[in-house]
Amino acid sequence: MTRLTTLANGVRVVSHDMPHVATVAVGLHVDTGARLEDERTNGVAHLLEHMVFKGTATRSARRIAEEVEDVGGSINAYTARDMTVFHARLLADDLPLGLDLIADLVRNPRFDADELEREKAVVLQELGEARDTPDDIVFDHLQAAAYPGQALGRSILGDEASVAGLTEADLRDWLAVQYRAGSCIVAAAGRVDHEALVGLSERLFGDLPTGRRPDFVPAAFAPGVVHDRRRFEQAHLTLAAAAPGHRHPDNDAIALFTMAAGGGASSRLFQELREERGLAYSVYASTTPYADAGLFSVYLATAKKDAARAFDLAIDVLATCAHTLTPDELARAKAQVRAGLLMSLESPAGWAEFLARQLLAHDRLATPAELVARVDAVDLEQVRAAAGRLVAGPYAVADVGAAAVRRAA
Amino acid sequence: MTRLTTLANGVRVVSHDMPHVATVAVGLHVDTGARLEDERTNGVAHLLEHMVFKGTATRSARRIAEEVEDVGGSINAYTARDMTVFHARLLADDLPLGLDLIADLVRNPRFDADELEREKAVVLQELGEARDTPDDIVFDHLQAAAYPGQALGRSILGDEASVAGLTEADLRDWLAVQYRAGSCIVAAAGRVDHEALVGLSERLFGDLPTGRRPDFVPAAFAPGVVHDRRRFEQAHLTLAAAAPGHRHPDNDAIALFTMAAGGGASSRLFQELREERGLAYSVYASTTPYADAGLFSVYLATAKKDAARAFDLAIDVLATCAHTLTPDELARAKAQVRAGLLMSLESPAGWAEFLARQLLAHDRLATPAELVARVDAVDLEQVRAAAGRLVAGPYAVADVGAAAVRRAA
Repeated sequence: MTRLTTLANGVRVVSHDMPHVATVAVGLHVDTGARLEDERTNGVAHLLEHMVFKGTATRSARRIAEEVEDVGGSINAYTARDMTVFHARLLADDLPLGLDLIADLVRNPRFDADELEREKAVVLQELGEARDTPDDIVFDHLQAAAYPGQALGRSILGDEASVAGLTEADLRDWLAVQYRAGSCIVAAAGRVDHEALVGLSERLFGDLPTGRRPDFVPAAFAPGVVHDRRRFEQAHLTLAAAAPGHRHPDNDAIALFTMAAGGGASSRLFQELREERGLAYSVYASTTPYADAGLFSVYLATAKKDAARAFDLAIDVLATCAHTLTPDELARAKAQVRAGLLMSLESPAGWAEFLARQLLAHDRLATPAELVARVDAVDLEQVRAAAGRLVAGPYAVADVGAAAVRRAA
Repeated sequence: MTRLTTLANGVRVVSHDMPHVATVAVGLHVDTGARLEDERTNGVAHLLEHMVFKGTATRSARRIAEEVEDVGGSINAYTARDMTVFHARLLADDLPLGLDLIADLVRNPRFDADELEREKAVVLQELGEARDTPDDIVFDHLQAAAYPGQALGRSILGDEASVAGLTEADLRDWLAVQYRAGSCIVAAAGRVDHEALVGLSERLFGDLPTGRRPDFVPAAFAPGVVHDRRRFEQAHLTLAAAAPGHRHPDNDAIALFTMAAGGGASSRLFQELREERGLAYSVYASTTPYADAGLFSVYLATAKKDAARAFDLAIDVLATCAHTLTPDELARAKAQVRAGLLMSLESPAGWAEFLARQLLAHDRLATPAELVARVDAVDLEQVRAAAGRLVAGPYAVADVGAAAVRRAA
């Protein structure tokens, strides 16, 4: 059973009870991220997420890790462009400990000066690792190509200069401005008692200042090009078309097109590029929706000599798929979306994330059955029409190690 | 409930019923992999795993993908050094389709000559992607350092020369010699009826030739060094000590030491290298047991200028941890192992893999409770003694982009 309670100050508390499991997933999902930063503060959302683990008023960094691992649990966090999440996996009885730790992190961080300098070094290491992973960094380049000069186009990690310039005051400002009650969601799933979760949340977050974080600047898509000249074994290629935001009526149609075009082994891109021609090992499509805009994107890695051919072919395949999608392909995509949802909801972490993401995107909860019914109701013409708008381009493109995409774009 | 049935020809069929879920995970786990290859055939286990998806007597590659994705399922496979697994995730009613597909793949592959050449190109793309991922390829280098000139030291993917030389006859020989009934396990978990699974397995695998695959050559650990000179942003460093095989009585103690030394955020390596000194973003320890031998290993990525210092420090931390492990740390490691097991068994795929891996490693099934009791019974002296043997070295070491480890080793 799913239950949602809004505290007096606006914090939303949502849970789904899975009585057959022995564990729980609990998280604090905050409606903020790198897209709320400006150029100077780029990386602050992520550095904040790191720094809160470096100690609170009553706990050292070591103590935080030990308390949760003493009971066999784990606690971690991630920062996205439009979301910051602190989450724990625990045996069911340890939920109060997990949520208390999360609250302590975001309510009482110490922000010790020495720790700040040390953690900046860790973030630079993380940046180095990202740059060493071409199939990761190429998506940062793609964001920069699609949203030049905008917050959505910048790296979540920041860069050497922006990270170096961040101060304790930036961190404190970020917390005060972004972590408002109306932007915070406590989500739990697994063996969980909703009333107890609400009581706990009231005690830990009931005095968070009301209100929501400021609005962000609307995104403006551009068909930019970013080329990373570093040499790897393969050329890593991406392209992106402007897609609509979270609440747009085309979104189910676009999700189905994404699945049919590049979602699995039967998809057009996989069949044409990998199975028919052996041009790639990895090739897939995905969609990243934000509140006001989104990206439909394709990634492929190929031998450098084949880069231009593979890239041109991918664009052709997308265009052809949009115009020739068959009823069988649509039915298959629907089955994949349905089963994928069902499978993701078999784990506590999957359920908790499902709840929080819906509240962040839609400010309301739909049941899995409602979502499935909505997907089932999409017809072929709707998918072809929405896909036709996507593949009409123009595309933003980015690559690591392949000058060829300049021509293809 | 867990049930195990051995068919007349020796195929083992094992299942765990999870009546609260709507889906099933089913796989064929074959007790073979790259360590059964010789130098000429290096990569054949993996190429076979790819090639069976390229068509069977009655299904094209496209048809295979479409049949499973038509019902929203997925089918995939992976090859390890000591295991080859074909696995499907499906709605519960589609289990017969999934297992029928898996059986068709390994019983009736077409091995078309054109497809073979095309798939070799895909494998070379996969190899290129692996080489573009330093935190992946460094573990191949570590295997080469630890097992020079041996099958366990070679890449699972093979290399350009060995893959080019593989023929249809090699694939057919591999199937005939390695995929014997006694080496095959059908494992399923989720909403599954054991009797029906056994009937299905009997029909699909009941006529597999009896017997097991040949024995492999025993592994001989060496403290080798492999240095990959390519330049990345970071230095990616690994080290490995010889650990015992699957059935050695030290294994629980070593698993607990691995957790305490480098298993989570409270571990010695994480605290000393990341939290105290900011030297790394990623640093962790792991253990890879094979039948007759194993590797205890550590990975870390660091700035190139810090490579020597970080590497020396990691070795010191391991040695100190082995000799000064505290009762609190041991209790915490036990809690982590316990909870980790419980959480992994909340998903159908986790249960199916748990069953198959136990049969492959031990030829018998222990309950989760038995495993937990065994872990709980390990005392501090046993862990210190087993860890002391590990950290006495010598270490095999491998790196990407850091000449420094030569000195440290």
